[in-house]
Amino acid sequence: MKREERGTLLSFRPSIRVVDATLRDGGLVNNFAFSDAFVRALYEANVHAGVDYMEFGYKSDASIFDAKKYGKWKFCREDDIRAVVGENATPMKIACMADVGRCDYERDIGEKGNSPVDMYRIAAYITQIPAAVAIAEHCKKLGYETTVNLMAVSNASEKEISIALELLGDAPVDVIYIVDSYGSVYPEEMRVLAEKYLEAGEKYGKKIGIHAHNNQNLAFANTIECTALGVDFLDATMSGMGRGAGNCAMELLLGFLKNPKYKLVHTLAFVEKHMRALREAGTVWGYDVPYLLTGILNRHPSSAIEFLRRGRTDYVEFYRELLDQE
Amino acid sequence: MKREERGTLLSFRPSIRVVDATLRDGGLVNNFAFSDAFVRALYEANVHAGVDYMEFGYKSDASIFDAKKYGKWKFCREDDIRAVVGENATPMKIACMADVGRCDYERDIGEKGNSPVDMYRIAAYITQIPAAVAIAEHCKKLGYETTVNLMAVSNASEKEISIALELLGDAPVDVIYIVDSYGSVYPEEMRVLAEKYLEAGEKYGKKIGIHAHNNQNLAFANTIECTALGVDFLDATMSGMGRGAGNCAMELLLGFLKNPKYKLVHTLAFVEKHMRALREAGTVWGYDVPYLLTGILNRHPSSAIEFLRRGRTDYVEFYRELLDQE
Repeated sequence: MKREERGTLLSFRPSIRVVDATLRDGGLVNNFAFSDAFVRALYEANVHAGVDYMEFGYKSDASIFDAKKYGKWKFCREDDIRAVVGENATPMKIACMADVGRCDYERDIGEKGNSPVDMYRIAAYITQIPAAVAIAEHCKKLGYETTVNLMAVSNASEKEISIALELLGDAPVDVIYIVDSYGSVYPEEMRVLAEKYLEAGEKYGKKIGIHAHNNQNLAFANTIECTALGVDFLDATMSGMGRGAGNCAMELLLGFLKNPKYKLVHTLAFVEKHMRALREAGTVWGYDVPYLLTGILNRHPSSAIEFLRRGRTDYVEFYRELLDQE
Repeated sequence: MKREERGTLLSFRPSIRVVDATLRDGGLVNNFAFSDAFVRALYEANVHAGVDYMEFGYKSDASIFDAKKYGKWKFCREDDIRAVVGENATPMKIACMADVGRCDYERDIGEKGNSPVDMYRIAAYITQIPAAVAIAEHCKKLGYETTVNLMAVSNASEKEISIALELLGDAPVDVIYIVDSYGSVYPEEMRVLAEKYLEAGEKYGKKIGIHAHNNQNLAFANTIECTALGVDFLDATMSGMGRGAGNCAMELLLGFLKNPKYKLVHTLAFVEKHMRALREAGTVWGYDVPYLLTGILNRHPSSAIEFLRRGRTDYVEFYRELLDQE
């Protein structure tokens, strides 16, 4: 993208797409135990707020994961999506995530035809790119939009990222996502990453996306820094709900974007009614000291999640434990 | 400052100074009702963490403010500071804030001589610069370091800021602070402001400082963006405690800075013991939706503080009320 097309703080770029990932990343907090009323209200709120894509959850393999242990959005059956969106006679598109190694895409993802799903987002670690490309080829052939979300980019070398971008450049992938899984990337580093992805995107005709985590209170900052440089696909979740420290909050993002099609008030109304209720019922996510520590040390948040689940508050001891694993 | 002196993500700049403002900005949350044990532990934690300045509170005029309604750090009597710091035989310096129009500096600020205070920070709106300069002249003549903290910079025009920087350039002020009082400045705008202040700083031989608020979850991001450009004085508070959405959290900042003199573990230990207890006792601060809304609209957080104090949760109605005041 040429610099003059990137927009300024007072203009907007029509190519921006906001992706609501509340059910998918938020589902990692509560095992996808969202009520039908919540999901329906979320769909309505997103449509009215002008959100471009709503991700319903994972397309997980029910032979691997016991359906009794998870809510339905771990599996995203088309009938379940239909029950919420009907004909989805709205401008908003529907996405699902296919996790490399955790889905049986050949069995579970069929012809676009009458499917309510518009886009499959394929999550992969950088070592799993061939597998991700295979899923993308499958989905593209069947008529879906595709993204590949390269997770844990903070653990990959510059060289690995270059190779990954070349491989994805040649693949049937519409959007390549920067994913800061551990919330460890500072804006200064994020801008370097974004420029690198955008360069590849320009070369191969791909859009670039950003999915940020809030371990260091940087999810929103990193998202809007990417936006200013030309990253078009922006992930956000209601109240930042997502694994561990969570994601970029939708209410922050829509408050920032200048495109008049985005309407903050509908997001606010949803947060007021539904996200507060979720928190009050005991669902816990968002910035907290243990996530800061795994973020600083560039680690998966699992140990911090466990620390909080056990009700521990001994931050210094936790920090020592993390350092012992260096 | 020349660009090569600014440091990189892997180096550090010895000229950086971390200022703990927990008692001062945090005191606006609880009317300065900090226990002596808290203040003593904070002093010890800051010394061990390598913090460069600790701000004890305001030097307020007891003829204006009723001493019975506030904790002692609203007034910062030298005896009270002495009782905590003794001879302060440490590398850490002591600061107090003098608020234009709310202090009787001629009566209350005497010779540096044996005072435990090293620096007076003078808070002023941009229209109060002549008054701020008068206080700075008074303090400098008596032997103190001085800063002027230009509040609500988001409400000032570029022209006003230029004039302000020229006036302060000629005044006996060691540090000029960018203050994002309303938490409304985005990193992209903050970098422009920082460059402007740094240019003036270079011309007049002044250091530049940053005091950020977290209404849009940007306090830490804005602080480190400024740091990368050459801003040297960095305000932070324990767990981000400060008016409304609070400030840049000390634990985030020390986790970022590469200077080995800063030791995160002492800050963590303080947060673990004292900041958790403060929250559990019912003291409330930090990012929340109402502060986001005043931040987006570039307003003083007072209406959001009142909204939360009343236990209101009707965000949409609050947003309408704010828009009605436009």
